[in-house]
Amino acid sequence: MSTSGRVAIQDVYPDDLAHCFGCGRNNASGHHLKSFVEGDEVVAHFIPAGNQVAIPGFVYGGLLASLVDCHAMATATFATELAAGRRIGEGPAPRFVTAALRVDYLKPTPLGPELEIRGRVTERSEKKAIVAVTISAAGTITVRAEIVAVPLPKSMERS
Amino acid sequence: MSTSGRVAIQDVYPDDLAHCFGCGRNNASGHHLKSFVEGDEVVAHFIPAGNQVAIPGFVYGGLLASLVDCHAMATATFATELAAGRRIGEGPAPRFVTAALRVDYLKPTPLGPELEIRGRVTERSEKKAIVAVTISAAGTITVRAEIVAVPLPKSMERS
Repeated sequence: MSTSGRVAIQDVYPDDLAHCFGCGRNNASGHHLKSFVEGDEVVAHFIPAGNQVAIPGFVYGGLLASLVDCHAMATATFATELAAGRRIGEGPAPRFVTAALRVDYLKPTPLGPELEIRGRVTERSEKKAIVAVTISAAGTITVRAEIVAVPLPKSMERS
Repeated sequence: MSTSGRVAIQDVYPDDLAHCFGCGRNNASGHHLKSFVEGDEVVAHFIPAGNQVAIPGFVYGGLLASLVDCHAMATATFATELAAGRRIGEGPAPRFVTAALRVDYLKPTPLGPELEIRGRVTERSEKKAIVAVTISAAGTITVRAEIVAVPLPKSMERS
């Protein structure tokens, strides 16, 4: 597999943990968000569908929170692999889930432009990663978020 | 219209502001969340579709954030109408949007049971309302959230 960073992080999640509605390749519907490593950041692009509105003309905040959430999990996976000396694509990647999500909607996000979602880990331990994420539309940051990601708990694993 | 509180708050949003993917009656798809007044709280029930998962068997956090978000806006509308001496259903209701969303995922939310979403306003001024929301599954609170709701800004109104 590529070591150039152009493998989507979600595409190296283990097969039985790749059903997320936001980003899982094994979810038949869903958003299928794909997040890629760029230097020490993780970047995704996404064009919301026309029905994904809050108010006509503006992207639905629930979708924006969803994108932030999935992107942050991918960013935590990247940072964890990097700390272990591995690149994305070198093997199945560890799966994180969200413990807490804080989203600030700085401005309305216009429907139409492709959104850029950018994440980086600001703090990391064995127990959790803190991830800072922004969403931009046409070069303007409209959403800023902080997410606490934790390794998949045993209670969520398949028995 | 009913004054018993059994009119869904989202169903008295103005017609041109009722397209939200999460709760708008004028969105052809979407979640169509309906929130009802119960005493001094606002309550909604929702059964996630089978594809709305994070990990197989557990509800997608992005959906939970979306439900919290829409429900909080409805709760802010209710509190604002109440403060003005009006009940839901007595006329078109004011529309709020989310300035900030904080969601704590206390436990994984199992897919299957009907979810109960419960909101109340903890602080209110002309400029904003702070709304506390919980989501329960089978009697256990799995999500706790705090949302800052602000009146629809002029920049989001149709020209």
